[in-house]
Amino acid sequence: MKILAINDDGVYAPGLWAVVEALQDVAEVVVVAPDREQSGVGTAITLSRPIRATEVVPLVDGIKTYAVEGTPADSAILALESLVEGPVDLVVSGINQGSNMGNDVFISGTMGAALQGFFRGIPTIAISVAALKNLHFAPAARVARLLAQGVADGKLVPPLLLNINLPNVPLEKIKGVSLTHLGQRTYMDVVKEGDDGRRKYYWITRERPGWVLEKGLDIWAVRRRRISITPIHTDLTSNTISREIRGLTRDIRQAFRP
Amino acid sequence: MKILAINDDGVYAPGLWAVVEALQDVAEVVVVAPDREQSGVGTAITLSRPIRATEVVPLVDGIKTYAVEGTPADSAILALESLVEGPVDLVVSGINQGSNMGNDVFISGTMGAALQGFFRGIPTIAISVAALKNLHFAPAARVARLLAQGVADGKLVPPLLLNINLPNVPLEKIKGVSLTHLGQRTYMDVVKEGDDGRRKYYWITRERPGWVLEKGLDIWAVRRRRISITPIHTDLTSNTISREIRGLTRDIRQAFRP
Amino acid sequence: MKILAINDDGVYAPGLWAVVEALQDVAEVVVVAPDREQSGVGTAITLSRPIRATEVVPLVDGIKTYAVEGTPADSAILALESLVEGPVDLVVSGINQGSNMGNDVFISGTMGAALQGFFRGIPTIAISVAALKNLHFAPAARVARLLAQGVADGKLVPPLLLNINLPNVPLEKIKGVSLTHLGQRTYMDVVKEGDDGRRKYYWITRERPGWVLEKGLDIWAVRRRRISITPIHTDLTSNTISREIRGLTRDIRQAFRP
Amino acid sequence: MKILAINDDGVYAPGLWAVVEALQDVAEVVVVAPDREQSGVGTAITLSRPIRATEVVPLVDGIKTYAVEGTPADSAILALESLVEGPVDLVVSGINQGSNMGNDVFISGTMGAALQGFFRGIPTIAISVAALKNLHFAPAARVARLLAQGVADGKLVPPLLLNINLPNVPLEKIKGVSLTHLGQRTYMDVVKEGDDGRRKYYWITRERPGWVLEKGLDIWAVRRRRISITPIHTDLTSNTISREIRGLTRDIRQAFRP
Repeated sequence: MKILAINDDGVYAPGLWAVVEALQDVAEVVVVAPDREQSGVGTAITLSRPIRATEVVPLVDGIKTYAVEGTPADSAILALESLVEGPVDLVVSGINQGSNMGNDVFISGTMGAALQGFFRGIPTIAISVAALKNLHFAPAARVARLLAQGVADGKLVPPLLLNINLPNVPLEKIKGVSLTHLGQRTYMDVVKEGDDGRRKYYWITRERPGWVLEKGLDIWAVRRRRISITPIHTDLTSNTISREIRGLTRDIRQAFRP
Repeated sequence: MKILAINDDGVYAPGLWAVVEALQDVAEVVVVAPDREQSGVGTAITLSRPIRATEVVPLVDGIKTYAVEGTPADSAILALESLVEGPVDLVVSGINQGSNMGNDVFISGTMGAALQGFFRGIPTIAISVAALKNLHFAPAARVARLLAQGVADGKLVPPLLLNINLPNVPLEKIKGVSLTHLGQRTYMDVVKEGDDGRRKYYWITRERPGWVLEKGLDIWAVRRRRISITPIHTDLTSNTISREIRGLTRDIRQAFRP
Repeated sequence: MKILAINDDGVYAPGLWAVVEALQDVAEVVVVAPDREQSGVGTAITLSRPIRATEVVPLVDGIKTYAVEGTPADSAILALESLVEGPVDLVVSGINQGSNMGNDVFISGTMGAALQGFFRGIPTIAISVAALKNLHFAPAARVARLLAQGVADGKLVPPLLLNINLPNVPLEKIKGVSLTHLGQRTYMDVVKEGDDGRRKYYWITRERPGWVLEKGLDIWAVRRRRISITPIHTDLTSNTISREIRGLTRDIRQAFRP
Repeated sequence: MKILAINDDGVYAPGLWAVVEALQDVAEVVVVAPDREQSGVGTAITLSRPIRATEVVPLVDGIKTYAVEGTPADSAILALESLVEGPVDLVVSGINQGSNMGNDVFISGTMGAALQGFFRGIPTIAISVAALKNLHFAPAARVARLLAQGVADGKLVPPLLLNINLPNVPLEKIKGVSLTHLGQRTYMDVVKEGDDGRRKYYWITRERPGWVLEKGLDIWAVRRRRISITPIHTDLTSNTISREIRGLTRDIRQAFRP
């Protein structure tokens, strides 16, 4: 069995190596990750120019490791289409430094990499810890290991994409596990303006707003020190079509009638 | 009424100005778009550094126009949080050079910009023509104008995100209008390897595979020379949770029991 | 006669178009300039990936104009090796917003572009106004025009590279013209540290130190409201070899003796 | 004594660590180098945005090592202004993969980093091996060590900037040591045109032309399997001012006379 480990915090981020360490005796692990931190790059793929990949020294002995001068999604594509020999049985994206909940999954590089595994029909998990500093990786590493074991045992079959978020607490403080829904809003973008002496600049910054902590949402679970597991699909088609949309579609049809 | 026009092909791309021209007597139009072509950057937001925006010469007289040294999503955030005064009533992302159908919407910069309008509760449309060269923009411009009129008339209210694709034909060749679902696959990523004399490189390239042209899908409509309108939602939570996932969730729960 | 106009402030910077306007009836002018501001990029050339050039709308009618997604030196190379047809008789780099004096010429993009003209045996001038805001371009434009006329009249022959700096005053306030030497120091780099919430960052900022205003230096001339013209060579070989260097060279020779 | 080791091939390039290994028992060595390969970026400094530096795992035990998300010159400035505590006694830039001779020193990132040491009054050497693959680093490492010993012994005092090039041969094949002049031309830029399916692109590529192998030039020495040591100065003022330049300066003076 072969596992691709990937992240968006950069190839030497500690969360990546915490999960590699936990997975290495379940399967062969290959690391292909961006050479720089890539928070916020979401689903971005580099199409306009070639990119480089360099084999680098692993932080866990014996793990084949590539640093990619590109995005997390670039790294996943390079790994799955070119760098990794033979089929990959599981893609693990993380352990991310910072939660990926609610709408944030759209701009998450962790999810951007994960989607490339999922689109190729490979069981994929994205896994994050809800803190930016002093992270407890052990619970997340254990969850990843249990899921990898599940794949090894044939219990997890594609299509499968799980978005997992953990509270930043040690193992013994975890209160439980919940299957959750994505919340509707987690961050607010604030634009800070400045001047470097030559020109004005704008710096997009994410700030944490208040939100409704409805039961069953990812944020609700994590706030209760529970592990949040959200099964993800990628069909963005809305099933509810309003009367207004139907009306306007009719108007457009009318306008294009010969 | 105020419309934000945005794209991912760059501020001087002809599709952007075709739609601006069509919209300018329905509402005040402001253009805020990337200064460079940004295909494939999807939802990416620049968080790690400040970005610049410059007011530039418009291609349609009298249109306030900003070029942003960032992604389409950056442009939308800067526009909506800082550059545009007063509320925006409609966000139009496009007219894109090239279709945005099926899973491609995830890596589409056109959609990446549109999502930022939608997340802020503004009626938003993403609009694309299915060709890379010699584009017919008139039908797409007319559709955008009809929808803008709909917003002006109070017929289109948020939450609203429409992904619209048109075949590359002149007005009189349009065969109809369909409310569609996103298809499941449109492109294949191929990684081409090369060497610049110093180092190996990898170039991600999208190739068009065969696909199933099921009735009701976006690709089906466009192939039939119909205008495809797909209502989009952004809830990535999967409603179908397999027995296997429930089983593994139980296992994880078990493993974390004190 | 054909002139290549180039800069490092970006293709729509006003200084570039002030000089284009002044030159257009002396010769055919072609503009090839970076699409973004590029201060500080010095001599940088993009070798690791391909770059794009787009023909854009000129700010002076009838001028063929390209925006390059690269550095000033990239722009010069693309212009001289590919974009401009036929031989170029003069390269004008500027009018730069901000002086380029003393050691700053090494990190000046204006000079980085100019060097590529000079290396190819083309008469080349770099021209700058010593201010960041509210610039008077007329004196610099007139100087450029006089030099272009000199090239047209066969009075200026290669090898020729002039670095010209003007005080920021209107025509009538110019006090004279001096042939000068480069000063030894103009800016100090200061590194400001900050934190974006996730990580520490460092921002290199140039600050203006005090300096010795020795007669005959570029800075001396500009401070006296004189036009400074510095003839440039590119032989970085030092002619003074100290006794110590000779001694150490002997030691190395000794060490490598079989 | 403290040495700053830096390069333009990236923090994990083998040439950097070959020199670190040779220097570590002469002085305390600190490594501050770009996180990615940066060939061709020359003197470029990043002024328009902040940059990041991360402490990373050294390839030689006990060496404090930072990877900078910027250019070689950025790395030098960050090191000397912020990251390295206490005064630096010697800057070593290299060992570069590929020669830096003739005019190429202007676009060499190795030299771009070295200049920042020199501008700050620190003895500085740039050191390169004339090959892109299968490099012999031992002779270059020995030269660097001898020069570091010279600084330790007070034999090398600023201002000092040496540009050193070695032939790619093992120790015993070195034929001697020469104090040299920079040659006049080493590379030719060729622009290769291509198309990525969406847009035309241009790729600047350096090709090796024939050249005159005059005695005393750097290229002459290296071709003879000798170590080339070129003392560098940074005064770009030309001492030879032609009659034509004097004439035109007079014309300009005339034109600006009130």
